[in-house]
Amino acid sequence: MSETATTPKPEQRFQGVGVAPGIAHAQAVIHWVDEEEIPLRKITNEELPEEIARFEAALIATRAELLEIQQRIADAIGAKDASIFDAHLLVVEDRTLIDEVLRNLEKQRNNIEYIFHQVAEKYCQTLSQIDDPYLRERVVDIEDVARRVIRHLLGKGPQGYTSNDKPHVIVSHNLTPSDTASLNRSLVLGFATEVGSKTSHSAIMARSLDIPAIVGLHGICSKLSNGDDILIDGYTGLLIINPTPETLHEYGKIESRKEEVEERLELIRDTVSATQEGRHIILSANIELPEEVDDVISSGAEGVGLYRTEFLYLNREEPPDEEEQFENYRLVAERAKPHSVIIRTLDIGGDKLSESLELEEEENPFLGCRAIRFCLQNPDIFKTQLRAILRAAALGNVRVMYPMISGVSELRQANALLEECKVELRERGVEFNPDIEVGIMIEVPSAALCADLLAREAKFFSIGTNDLIQYSIAVDRGNDKIAHLYEPTHPSVLRLIKSVIEAAHRNNIWVGVCGEMAGDIQYTPLLIGLGVDELSASSSVVPRVKKAVQSLSLATCQTFANEVFEADTAEVILKRCIEIARAHYGELLD
Amino acid sequence: MSETATTPKPEQRFQGVGVAPGIAHAQAVIHWVDEEEIPLRKITNEELPEEIARFEAALIATRAELLEIQQRIADAIGAKDASIFDAHLLVVEDRTLIDEVLRNLEKQRNNIEYIFHQVAEKYCQTLSQIDDPYLRERVVDIEDVARRVIRHLLGKGPQGYTSNDKPHVIVSHNLTPSDTASLNRSLVLGFATEVGSKTSHSAIMARSLDIPAIVGLHGICSKLSNGDDILIDGYTGLLIINPTPETLHEYGKIESRKEEVEERLELIRDTVSATQEGRHIILSANIELPEEVDDVISSGAEGVGLYRTEFLYLNREEPPDEEEQFENYRLVAERAKPHSVIIRTLDIGGDKLSESLELEEEENPFLGCRAIRFCLQNPDIFKTQLRAILRAAALGNVRVMYPMISGVSELRQANALLEECKVELRERGVEFNPDIEVGIMIEVPSAALCADLLAREAKFFSIGTNDLIQYSIAVDRGNDKIAHLYEPTHPSVLRLIKSVIEAAHRNNIWVGVCGEMAGDIQYTPLLIGLGVDELSASSSVVPRVKKAVQSLSLATCQTFANEVFEADTAEVILKRCIEIARAHYGELLD
Repeated sequence: MSETATTPKPEQRFQGVGVAPGIAHAQAVIHWVDEEEIPLRKITNEELPEEIARFEAALIATRAELLEIQQRIADAIGAKDASIFDAHLLVVEDRTLIDEVLRNLEKQRNNIEYIFHQVAEKYCQTLSQIDDPYLRERVVDIEDVARRVIRHLLGKGPQGYTSNDKPHVIVSHNLTPSDTASLNRSLVLGFATEVGSKTSHSAIMARSLDIPAIVGLHGICSKLSNGDDILIDGYTGLLIINPTPETLHEYGKIESRKEEVEERLELIRDTVSATQEGRHIILSANIELPEEVDDVISSGAEGVGLYRTEFLYLNREEPPDEEEQFENYRLVAERAKPHSVIIRTLDIGGDKLSESLELEEEENPFLGCRAIRFCLQNPDIFKTQLRAILRAAALGNVRVMYPMISGVSELRQANALLEECKVELRERGVEFNPDIEVGIMIEVPSAALCADLLAREAKFFSIGTNDLIQYSIAVDRGNDKIAHLYEPTHPSVLRLIKSVIEAAHRNNIWVGVCGEMAGDIQYTPLLIGLGVDELSASSSVVPRVKKAVQSLSLATCQTFANEVFEADTAEVILKRCIEIARAHYGELLD
Repeated sequence: MSETATTPKPEQRFQGVGVAPGIAHAQAVIHWVDEEEIPLRKITNEELPEEIARFEAALIATRAELLEIQQRIADAIGAKDASIFDAHLLVVEDRTLIDEVLRNLEKQRNNIEYIFHQVAEKYCQTLSQIDDPYLRERVVDIEDVARRVIRHLLGKGPQGYTSNDKPHVIVSHNLTPSDTASLNRSLVLGFATEVGSKTSHSAIMARSLDIPAIVGLHGICSKLSNGDDILIDGYTGLLIINPTPETLHEYGKIESRKEEVEERLELIRDTVSATQEGRHIILSANIELPEEVDDVISSGAEGVGLYRTEFLYLNREEPPDEEEQFENYRLVAERAKPHSVIIRTLDIGGDKLSESLELEEEENPFLGCRAIRFCLQNPDIFKTQLRAILRAAALGNVRVMYPMISGVSELRQANALLEECKVELRERGVEFNPDIEVGIMIEVPSAALCADLLAREAKFFSIGTNDLIQYSIAVDRGNDKIAHLYEPTHPSVLRLIKSVIEAAHRNNIWVGVCGEMAGDIQYTPLLIGLGVDELSASSSVVPRVKKAVQSLSLATCQTFANEVFEADTAEVILKRCIEIARAHYGELLD
């Protein structure tokens, strides 16, 4: 840029994809470091003391950061396992490593980031050659700590967003589940990422936290500095650097219009979610953490339609034991009463990894050893969870649901383990619910295609549209090069959903939808018309979906769902979906 | 092992998965190097000259190896682009790099492998930080050469299997398409790999080359040395080190029984592939290289059902131009006359990468920007190929087929580009066939699910069972942790195949199968019963499939295909498939 520091900075606009509605205006905190970013330059004799001082400061800052994360995790998940960062702390105090860095600095006269990265990498390589599981784990620690130190050296701000004490918008290349697990929810006003899509983890997380988010802002990290004044518009996907007073005024007006709609939605919170003919569509909410159950209740949702349990397993050294899980599930079940809570068993793998479980790297993790596949191969971990769920089911209205079932064989294997758990609990004399209802996610095409066979052996289905679409069209929903192919209204996807619902109803079981389609009111008329019995979405959108349901007539939806199959492309069907939604509740869409 | 060098080495057996039939007995050539393998040890003053000598020898050997590969590629694909290795040759002669290695050796007193790896890596890192496309390409060259040098230093034998002049069996961690492109077919008697599955690239390649292969031999590379005497049994998946005379005798008998069957198959080569009622099932062959067309003809196949064109794009700096492609396609078309040749357009991406095309790394390449997706985003590359195909279609019976079509939108986009090509060729006054038949692969579940819509706009379907199974069950066929879930007889897969065939026949177009199921005679009764019109398999199995077809009655197959849907698991269906195959042509199965 040609501007000098004294002229007012010009407004700049960047277009991404809005994935969680809302507007946020705050300073940017950038979370990004890549090996390619580490600069290399020669330093003079005079600069030597400064490099050493920078190194020391970075070690101190990293130490403070690690202690703070440790405290936060201890608070969030119960003290026991936050010792995960003890090993990390040892790294910043390791004399051998520090001395070698200083020696190489003296000798090579390269900048300290480069030297430190080089030494840390050599350490990791040497350790990983030794055939010892403890040392191999240390490699991961050292890599993590090294990244944090380098971030401090580069002035990129802390990793994990924890030491920033003002409200801010996170700008990053990507956000992983373990990133989001450690962020400070009260200070993060929004996300903006370079990659991702409407259904990538960061987008789901943002909607679940009810904060605006934008993805697909290619190269944005290098266009911003920490502390830059930015505004993100999660409705349209616009990121604005240095918004002018005019821009801010414009956005003020937009926000007040949105708030009016929110206030009107507030009024219907305690009404029933039924179409104009009185067809009741159960509206439940998805949660990831036990404490979110309060949002579920205040949103007016009828219980928890999808309790994702992965977060219990993240950022810790050992998977949670039966007691700890039981306490978590019991808490949610008791708060949700008399409504039901559907606990989905561990869906690890794919893009969700955990330090406490040994997962191998895979070429195509979405087509790999994830969810029920992992659990059936690790029956101890799976059965620990099943026992905790069975026990919680004695104290509340709890159902269990298996993810990624691909056919009847897997369902039978999982149920056999569930029966073993019942025997074990009976022998231990512990209270549990032997009649717990077992349902499955329909998210693998082969499960959808043999839904009739599965419906004989399950009590309910919940269609996970995100994965079902991803696999049916063979499109990684996180890969933005082909994001345009990820089309919820693809005729084949709608045919699959229709056939699943028909198979379920012929076998007298109910079907819900818990993927992102459930919370997107563009699709409400279509899903109701296809016959879904339940929609489960994030608490933040439940009032909006309820309003949509109440605005519709079942007959209209059914006619619409029939006619839609005349079209042969996703684009045409999507256009019709938007038309019917706009005709019935346009004010919710703007 | 406790044996000393003088006692005869004991026979050792390792069980893997047989993926290409046959028996091979030869010395092992190991192709494996991994960063973790590079040892680190201190060397004494006395050892210093020896380390330097080893380094010089490795550089010389690498140079010889590169020259030989260059020659081989020049011979195989026409001289023009074999200059790809010129840049590689420069690396082994780079004084700056060599001097730095020698300096560091003097200073650090670590073994030469370790030093060389460290220096090469630093070079690559420094180069990749400079924003220059030429230098970034050089990084890839340096990495490739560095791996070859290190292989020589470790005594692992050459990379690319090219300098071994005796018949041998390749043992490796994995085989990539570019590995196989440079191997010496007359000397390689078999493959054995640590990872992979029946449908991974190395397995397909082995069957196509008609040599025995085993996958899934975990850790085998570290249990063997170059030159070890090994026998591989591609029927049962057994690898035997140091086979005893008794073992060799036993295998001699097995081979002679197999040869008898082969001789009997020879006799039916020129007969028609029809069931006992006379229902003609077209039998064609899959090829990857133009020269394979001779095998197709001598196998008795009725033309080429799948000409995979990816190999034209591998191991070169620029994609092939229109003339070069036209020459290749023309050659195949003219040799295959009067039979037809179905040219599949470029299916790059997934596990097939090319140096000449800029492909980004993807988290889930099988769900990424591959095949028609890549081509539609790179219309210049795609149209160059389409023009070459259109021109070849004027000289022979050539059809064109698009891979990875997911719905009608993509088919229409591809056809629009094809029409543009016709206009361009017409303007240039070049001869071409404007009425070329356009078909599509059915390998994405969404395509199978809307086959009725696609059948209105295509002239034929070819079901790619490998990918169709992979996506329908969400199982990476190369990931052996979940290989057991990759089940061709999954009821949902069979339902999909059935619905595709019905949709095609209702629209009066024909359907083939070109995935691995087509060549596996376990499935022949099922596929005939479901109604396929064509089977396309590798030339080596064509006689076997023909014999199977001739042994069957259409009515039996149809009854079988109907009854099979009563079963609800893949295991039960597979069992029935084997029973019926055994009853009709047991001698082909053993």
